[in-house]
Amino acid sequence: MTCWVNGQPAVGLALTDRGLAYGDGLFETMRVTDGQINWLELHLQRLQSGCQRLRIDLDMTQMRHELLAFAAQQGQGVCKLILTRGDGQRGYGLPQPTYPRRILQAAPLPLWPAQHAEQGVRLFPCQTRLAIQPLLAGLKHLNRLEQVMARAEWNDSEHAEGLLLDTEGRIIECVFSNIFFVRQGCLLTPELSGSGVAGIMRERIMQLARELGIAVQIRDILPDALAGMDELFTCNSLYGIWPVREYRGQQWLPGPLTRKLQHILDR
Amino acid sequence: MTCWVNGQPAVGLALTDRGLAYGDGLFETMRVTDGQINWLELHLQRLQSGCQRLRIDLDMTQMRHELLAFAAQQGQGVCKLILTRGDGQRGYGLPQPTYPRRILQAAPLPLWPAQHAEQGVRLFPCQTRLAIQPLLAGLKHLNRLEQVMARAEWNDSEHAEGLLLDTEGRIIECVFSNIFFVRQGCLLTPELSGSGVAGIMRERIMQLARELGIAVQIRDILPDALAGMDELFTCNSLYGIWPVREYRGQQWLPGPLTRKLQHILDR
Repeated sequence: MTCWVNGQPAVGLALTDRGLAYGDGLFETMRVTDGQINWLELHLQRLQSGCQRLRIDLDMTQMRHELLAFAAQQGQGVCKLILTRGDGQRGYGLPQPTYPRRILQAAPLPLWPAQHAEQGVRLFPCQTRLAIQPLLAGLKHLNRLEQVMARAEWNDSEHAEGLLLDTEGRIIECVFSNIFFVRQGCLLTPELSGSGVAGIMRERIMQLARELGIAVQIRDILPDALAGMDELFTCNSLYGIWPVREYRGQQWLPGPLTRKLQHILDR
Repeated sequence: MTCWVNGQPAVGLALTDRGLAYGDGLFETMRVTDGQINWLELHLQRLQSGCQRLRIDLDMTQMRHELLAFAAQQGQGVCKLILTRGDGQRGYGLPQPTYPRRILQAAPLPLWPAQHAEQGVRLFPCQTRLAIQPLLAGLKHLNRLEQVMARAEWNDSEHAEGLLLDTEGRIIECVFSNIFFVRQGCLLTPELSGSGVAGIMRERIMQLARELGIAVQIRDILPDALAGMDELFTCNSLYGIWPVREYRGQQWLPGPLTRKLQHILDR
């Protein structure tokens, strides 16, 4: 696996890094196609917004150049960026000065079965609930124990993903994906102001829907509302869109809007 | 700074460690005196309980031997253990098999002013609220962005610590300490079933109080109740006990029970 740390090939990380000590940082998981990062601008925007909220002072021009160079060398696959606040002395206080650390890792694209996208997936009903923390909601930060706990709940290949509610019972997202619903021609996706990750593919799909003249609502969605949904699908930057065909015994068929969005994204 | 990784001197960490990727692990911050770890059994108990909850399979006998050897070599100061789930392939799923990674770091004891313990400290009223997540509450896990955000709220030396409430407004703990209250001869400390770290010194103080025949209540405590408290103090494994003398304009004097507990712990 090719890795760069601050632009240089590396195999190891300083033990004093605050990413390790506190999960003090952010990450981005990006698909690389023909030497280019898909939706690079959206990834950079989210990264910058995360840096502002966590008060990490990142040189975005240098970051962009580094990502372009890394992807050009990689060619195809997944490029993961871990951005940490860098080394710290002991204690939670922000180091002065701070030198953020940029870690880039290349990996092949995971081999998901083609039928996930074609026939749809079953969602596991996770018992792990997402805590409500508006200060961190939406960010792709490095505090991911909730996702680790949730993903450990199932171990069969029948379920491609798991659905996560927050501690107040709202539907939020899946373990490594966002979720959308279609009801009466309108696209719905959960409000993420209390928990969840505001995914790049979620953003891209909302843009696409608006371009297509389809109404998009970001709102609280409770499990009771599932029975009235015409279509469900999950999405992320790596696999695109998977229709949902089953959750807790309720079933759906891949619907026309899901297919239309898949078709546009495949081009 | 002396560091060991899995029992061997080391300066770096594999970039594939899940501690870095997800904060997937636990830590312990231990005081070392004359080559021995203070309250070693309590630290090991909490570590073991954390491993059970996170499903990390740790060889406790090996861990104990390693801590003893490290402390014997260190002599005096702070020994920090970071225990991660070890290396992972891509994705949240638990690696099979899992090889947990034990990281030990030696540091000098922080130099806090002696008047913190003698005259007491002021607490900063943190705006950062702790999310409610019963699955992780009490654990000293590596997902510490809330503490990082909270500690960044003040930058003066007037406040030695900051008080944290949860998102529902209960008093939980301080940024790097637990908190106790004395009311009518009874010792109170917040319930930590929804958030917070169940500290070793908190545990030790509750044991001590019971030995002294002092009633201890673990319960929800709201800020409104502060006006009726006779004494307040914070505690952790490194500094012991600091009386609280001020919070949001309310003032207290170091009281007799605080002094008694300090005196016993100093021996």
